[in-house]
Amino acid sequence: MTLEELETYKIEPVSHEVYQAVKRNWDRVAKPLDGLGQFEELLAKIGAAHGSAALDISRKAVIVMCADHGIVAEHVSQSPQTVTAQVAECMGQNRTSVGKMAQKVGADVIVVDIGMNSDREFPGVINRKIRRGTGNFYKESAMSEQEALAALKTGIDLAASCRKQGFRLIGTGEMGIGNTAASSAVAAALLGCPAAEVTGKGAGLSEEGLKHKRRIIQEALTRYQFRKEETLRILATVGGLDIAGLAGVCIGGALNRLPVVLDGFISSVAALTAKRLLPGVEEYLIPSHKSREPAAERILKELGLSPVLDAGMALGEGTGAVMMFALLDMALALYEAPTTFSDMAVEPYRRFEPEKGSVPC
Amino acid sequence: MTLEELETYKIEPVSHEVYQAVKRNWDRVAKPLDGLGQFEELLAKIGAAHGSAALDISRKAVIVMCADHGIVAEHVSQSPQTVTAQVAECMGQNRTSVGKMAQKVGADVIVVDIGMNSDREFPGVINRKIRRGTGNFYKESAMSEQEALAALKTGIDLAASCRKQGFRLIGTGEMGIGNTAASSAVAAALLGCPAAEVTGKGAGLSEEGLKHKRRIIQEALTRYQFRKEETLRILATVGGLDIAGLAGVCIGGALNRLPVVLDGFISSVAALTAKRLLPGVEEYLIPSHKSREPAAERILKELGLSPVLDAGMALGEGTGAVMMFALLDMALALYEAPTTFSDMAVEPYRRFEPEKGSVPC
Repeated sequence: MTLEELETYKIEPVSHEVYQAVKRNWDRVAKPLDGLGQFEELLAKIGAAHGSAALDISRKAVIVMCADHGIVAEHVSQSPQTVTAQVAECMGQNRTSVGKMAQKVGADVIVVDIGMNSDREFPGVINRKIRRGTGNFYKESAMSEQEALAALKTGIDLAASCRKQGFRLIGTGEMGIGNTAASSAVAAALLGCPAAEVTGKGAGLSEEGLKHKRRIIQEALTRYQFRKEETLRILATVGGLDIAGLAGVCIGGALNRLPVVLDGFISSVAALTAKRLLPGVEEYLIPSHKSREPAAERILKELGLSPVLDAGMALGEGTGAVMMFALLDMALALYEAPTTFSDMAVEPYRRFEPEKGSVPC
Repeated sequence: MTLEELETYKIEPVSHEVYQAVKRNWDRVAKPLDGLGQFEELLAKIGAAHGSAALDISRKAVIVMCADHGIVAEHVSQSPQTVTAQVAECMGQNRTSVGKMAQKVGADVIVVDIGMNSDREFPGVINRKIRRGTGNFYKESAMSEQEALAALKTGIDLAASCRKQGFRLIGTGEMGIGNTAASSAVAAALLGCPAAEVTGKGAGLSEEGLKHKRRIIQEALTRYQFRKEETLRILATVGGLDIAGLAGVCIGGALNRLPVVLDGFISSVAALTAKRLLPGVEEYLIPSHKSREPAAERILKELGLSPVLDAGMALGEGTGAVMMFALLDMALALYEAPTTFSDMAVEPYRRFEPEKGSVPC
C-alpha cells in the first residue's frame, strides 16, 4: 500500500438516520430523558456506524499491538526492552491484565507482534512483524515510510478480518516498552506543540526521568523540523510500529463500518494519526477513559471525543477499552429488551430542548 | 432511635494497615505502578473497610429507596406523583433499568417502599413505609424529626441485614418523583449556598421549569432559615424519606464495615447528611459517577470522593452504582488471581515518589 493508495480509500459516512432512530428509541425507554447521558449517544454512534438501529455488540475483540522502540536506548523508560516480549508471551496465554478483564466481559484478545525485538514465536501471538523494533529516533528515523505504511496496512487488514469473523466492536491496545515516548513525540509533532506539554511519566519514571524524557523528545523534534501536515513522515520518523498498526486498526474499522473503542494515550495518538491520514475515521471511534498522561484529554478533543471514565489509569494493553465494553454492554441491556413508558402505562417525558447530540459526537 | 442515641453510635476506623497491604499487593501485579489509578485506591479502601486484604466483593446488592415528595404539588417535576409507585412496582419485578443492569453484574436489587403515597403492596418491594409521602415543604415541614429518624433507622437496619446475609458491598439507589427538588433543598441548606447553585433539571424540566423549581426551593429555604449544623432539622423539613433512608444505609454500612457505593446526586446528598450526623461514615463510601445535576461534584468533594465515571448520566435507581460494581469486579480480576512481576521473571517497577493515596481517599 502506498500513501497515494491509502488516500484513495473511501470511508462511508455513518448513518445520521440510524443515529436519530436510536436516539428516538432511547426516549421510549422508561427513564429520564438522556438518563444514560453519553452512553445513549455512544450507542447511537455505534448504530450509525453499523447502519442499523438494532444494536448488536455481542461479539467484541481487543487488538493488542506489541512492538519495540529504539528510543529506549536513551533511557526514557524504567524497564528494559526485553520486557515487551516477556509480557507479550504472557498475554498470548491470557495471563496479563487485558486477558483477565476481557474474560469478565466475554471479549476476545488478539495479540499481534507487529515489531518486537525478538525472533521468538509465542503461542497465542500472531506474527505480523514488520521489523525487529524501530530505530532510536534520537539518532535516526524510527522506520522508513514504507515500513510505516506496511504497519498501517497490517492494522487495516486485521480490522477487516475482525469484521469478516463477525466482530461488531473492536478495541485497541498495545504493549511496547518506550511507546509513550514515541506517542508523545508524534503528539507534539501532530499538534505542533512543545514536547513538555504532551510528555508524561509513562509506566513509572521519576521526576528526573521525566525531565530527561522531555529533553530527548524535544531535541529530536527540533532536529526533524516537522510540519503538522506531514503525518506519514512524523509517524515513520518518531512513531512506532504499534502506533502505526493501531492507526491502521482505526482506518480499517472505519472502512469496514466496525466501530473502534480507543484505550488510552497511545491509542488516541494512533487514532489522531489515522484521522489526519484519512479524515472521517473519527466518526467510527468510541472513547473510553482519560489516561493520566498529560495530553490524553487534548488528543481526544482533537478527535471530537469525550472520555466517560476518568480514574487516572495508565495501564495500557487495552484495559480501558475492555472496561468500556462492560459499560456499553450494561447500557445496551436497557435498549435491547426495553421496558418502555407504554409498557408501564406512564406518560413519556416531553423534550423541551433540541435533542442533544443530533450530530454524532 | 433518638438523635442522642444515633450520636452515640461508634464507627470503627477503617484499617490503614490493610489499606497499605492492598496497595503493596497492587505493586506486585505485573502492570505499571498505579496503572489502574483510582481503582487500586478504591479497592484498598474496600479492604480497609472490611479489615482484610483478601478482597471479597463477590456478593453485592443495591438498595433502592422509593418514596414520594409533597413538593411535587408545586410543579417542580414533569411527572405526576403516581409514577413513583408505577416504577417501583415494575422494579419489584426486575423490569426497570437497575434490575437489567444488576443482572449483568450478578448483583441483587433490594427495593424498599420507605414512603410512597400508595397503600398498595407490590411483589418484590419490601414495605418499610414510614408515611404516605412527605408534606409539601414549600408550605409545611416535609416530615417530623421522629419520622426522619425512623427512616434513618430503617436504612441502618437494612444495611445491617445485608451484612448478615453475607453481602460484601452495597450500592444506593432511589425512585421518587420530586426527589431532586428535595435533594437540592437539603444540599443548599447543608452547604449554606443559594438554591440556584445546586438545583438542576432533574428528570427533564424545561428552562422555565428549572427557574420555577429554583424559586420554590429558594423561597422555602429563606423561610426556614437553617443553620448548616442543623442536619436533622434540615433533613426532616425539606428532605425526603428516600434521602433519609439512604443516609441510614450509609450509616448502617459504616457501622457494619460494609462499604457503600454511592449512585448519583440524591445518594450523595444522603451521604453528606449521614456524614454530618455521624462523622466517619465517609471512610466507608465509594463514589461511582458524576451526575449531570449541577451540585454533583461539589457534594462528592465535601465527602472527599472523586467519581470515576463522568458520562452526564441522571437516571437514578442506583444504575451508576451498579455500573461501578462492574468496574470494580474487572479491577479485582487483576488482584485476586494476580500475575506478578516474579511470575513473569520481570523486574518490578521502582517507586520514586511517596505512595499515592497513603491515606484512604
